[in-house]
Amino acid sequence: MKLSAFPDMGPLAGVKLGAVACGINYQDRNDLFMAELEPGTAIAGVFTRSRTAAAPVLWCRENIAGGKVRAIVSNAGNANAFTGRHGDKTVQDTVTRTAKLFGCPRKQIFVASTGSIGVPFPVDTIPNNLSALKKSVKRDNWLTAAQAIMTTDTVPKGATRTTEIDDAPVTINGIGKGTQMISPDMATTLNFIFTDAKIPAPVLQKLLSRIIDRTYNCITVEGDTSTNDSLFLCATGKAEHKRITDAADPRLRPFARALEEVLRDISHAIVRDATGAKKFVAITVTGAASARAARRIGLSMASSTLVKVGLRIANPWGRMIMAVGKCGERADRDQLSITANGVLVAEHGNILDDYDADRVTKHLKGSELALGVDVGVGRGRATVWTTDCSVGYG
Amino acid sequence: MKLSAFPDMGPLAGVKLGAVACGINYQDRNDLFMAELEPGTAIAGVFTRSRTAAAPVLWCRENIAGGKVRAIVSNAGNANAFTGRHGDKTVQDTVTRTAKLFGCPRKQIFVASTGSIGVPFPVDTIPNNLSALKKSVKRDNWLTAAQAIMTTDTVPKGATRTTEIDDAPVTINGIGKGTQMISPDMATTLNFIFTDAKIPAPVLQKLLSRIIDRTYNCITVEGDTSTNDSLFLCATGKAEHKRITDAADPRLRPFARALEEVLRDISHAIVRDATGAKKFVAITVTGAASARAARRIGLSMASSTLVKVGLRIANPWGRMIMAVGKCGERADRDQLSITANGVLVAEHGNILDDYDADRVTKHLKGSELALGVDVGVGRGRATVWTTDCSVGYG
Repeated sequence: MKLSAFPDMGPLAGVKLGAVACGINYQDRNDLFMAELEPGTAIAGVFTRSRTAAAPVLWCRENIAGGKVRAIVSNAGNANAFTGRHGDKTVQDTVTRTAKLFGCPRKQIFVASTGSIGVPFPVDTIPNNLSALKKSVKRDNWLTAAQAIMTTDTVPKGATRTTEIDDAPVTINGIGKGTQMISPDMATTLNFIFTDAKIPAPVLQKLLSRIIDRTYNCITVEGDTSTNDSLFLCATGKAEHKRITDAADPRLRPFARALEEVLRDISHAIVRDATGAKKFVAITVTGAASARAARRIGLSMASSTLVKVGLRIANPWGRMIMAVGKCGERADRDQLSITANGVLVAEHGNILDDYDADRVTKHLKGSELALGVDVGVGRGRATVWTTDCSVGYG
Repeated sequence: MKLSAFPDMGPLAGVKLGAVACGINYQDRNDLFMAELEPGTAIAGVFTRSRTAAAPVLWCRENIAGGKVRAIVSNAGNANAFTGRHGDKTVQDTVTRTAKLFGCPRKQIFVASTGSIGVPFPVDTIPNNLSALKKSVKRDNWLTAAQAIMTTDTVPKGATRTTEIDDAPVTINGIGKGTQMISPDMATTLNFIFTDAKIPAPVLQKLLSRIIDRTYNCITVEGDTSTNDSLFLCATGKAEHKRITDAADPRLRPFARALEEVLRDISHAIVRDATGAKKFVAITVTGAASARAARRIGLSMASSTLVKVGLRIANPWGRMIMAVGKCGERADRDQLSITANGVLVAEHGNILDDYDADRVTKHLKGSELALGVDVGVGRGRATVWTTDCSVGYG
């Protein structure tokens, strides 16, 4: 399948990015990233729901509701997960020293890590590199930043959109990383999204929580949940429009659409870079009891190893039906229909004797699949994105 | 890993088994199985919770509460799932004709199918072969029966125990099939357990529901749920003890233990025969909030592709912690410990610097793994059984 290209992204008022190499795990490459935000920048975030979340996630969950950010620090190569008290100390020291460097409250500093789980974290490495890191920040440094957060990613990942609020131009720039699966440990998705829009944190958070359910919460590679997944959305407020105070404000609609496109682009770039995968697969579920039910049915198919192997051997139908049935959402067995690239394969609970097998087989052999399943009970719909079975398991 | 051997099983009063070849999918082998039970035999059963369950499962779910059985008919090679009205008609015709052959109510006839999903079922094949099938039944025919229900199984599967109720000898004989994963469609587990004990259906059902949670509900190969999974437990009442009327009756204890052993043996035989798997893996979870929570945590690890691949590359720790965290059950990150074959690998939320890596690596390279995870919040415990990543996914 096609990997996503890194887009041209211009400077964004109020944001500077930097990176240095500190050798936490990798040699001869940047592995420590900083975003500096001008005072007054609002922040919202979403984090893994894991009960064994990494130390930096625990800090962010606790402080995100403060809604203000002055800097974000993130490392690649060690997840700082299952690292006990030492891991917590690393986070505390990083936050304290960064806050001192910027002369801001500690709760305006956010942190993220990605890499191996359960590997002792070198406690002093990040704190000792913070001064150099701060010196490295500059405007218009997106590609360097996107490269510094990579782990098993084969390409840097980013997306950009410009839109308007009240006729004032507004930009959204984002970078992300993740391929879901690394040997010998699990990868993570980290995402840093920036805008110059003037939107307070509670409105930003509402918007983000809604959009995340249609983007990152609709992708899966192998169905597992990282200890470190994090997405930050920072709004510097430098754009020249009147302040937005309500997530339902119709003036926000173009911005919300643009933000959804940025998140969709980066999340798809992650799926496309999944280690070992050969196909990018969109599964659209219709006729479900609700949008939420449709998403659950979709993800049940998209994360089933049996379905994913089936996509490779070009006979996924029985397994798709199995996965619809197993997730517990309502489905009418005798109304269920399936399409492949719009061609009807099954209808009224039967695989059709005379479906256009030539066209369908050709589609399934390709690297960009579009499958549809109607479960015949309501009007809920959702699209989810996944890959064929992604790893040469040996 | 070692496959389970088929045991010597003697006749069981009130049970006859038979098999014929009717060519539904396979050639030159038996593919249709019948169990004939003497009038008055009690039956209990558990079935897949799938919302897209196969036609025979729908019939059984509806009729199992009747509690009486005269015959069971089961085919291999076609799951009769996603086969619409034709599938239902096949079941109805099979039940009607079998009931006529035995001169019993239709609700005393049970059916099961296993094989490909979504392949049209030849409507007349089973009904046309029922007379021959009835003629084939005889006492002491366990191996033939176990072979007739195989699909991708490489060995027939069975287990037997003798025990006592009130000093009277009681026997339990069972056969099963399943390898979980077939190309191009999913396999199923079907299980037929017989005893001469004198236990009414409601007591039998209570006993079964409890034991199934510690046996079949604790095994997983790839975490998917079949449209066809079925287990039947039939009690002919020929043993010479007084009737049992209460599942809590202490006289039942030795029988309950023996039944659990039979179900555990067959369910383990299924895991050991999982297509492509090389390791039999027992994961014991302790310190959970409840036994149920322990099982959920265990199955979260046991069905994670990342963990299963990790077992193959001998570095599963980080992924195990991830899988503990993702299932939503309570776990204390800073109390979590891990053992491999009893050797401590992680303690108090840290991988130990000085654990006995030689012994642990040697154990992980073997084909019979015993892993332990204590999540440090309570006294709930459970053991689950799985394999390493089971399929050469290409």
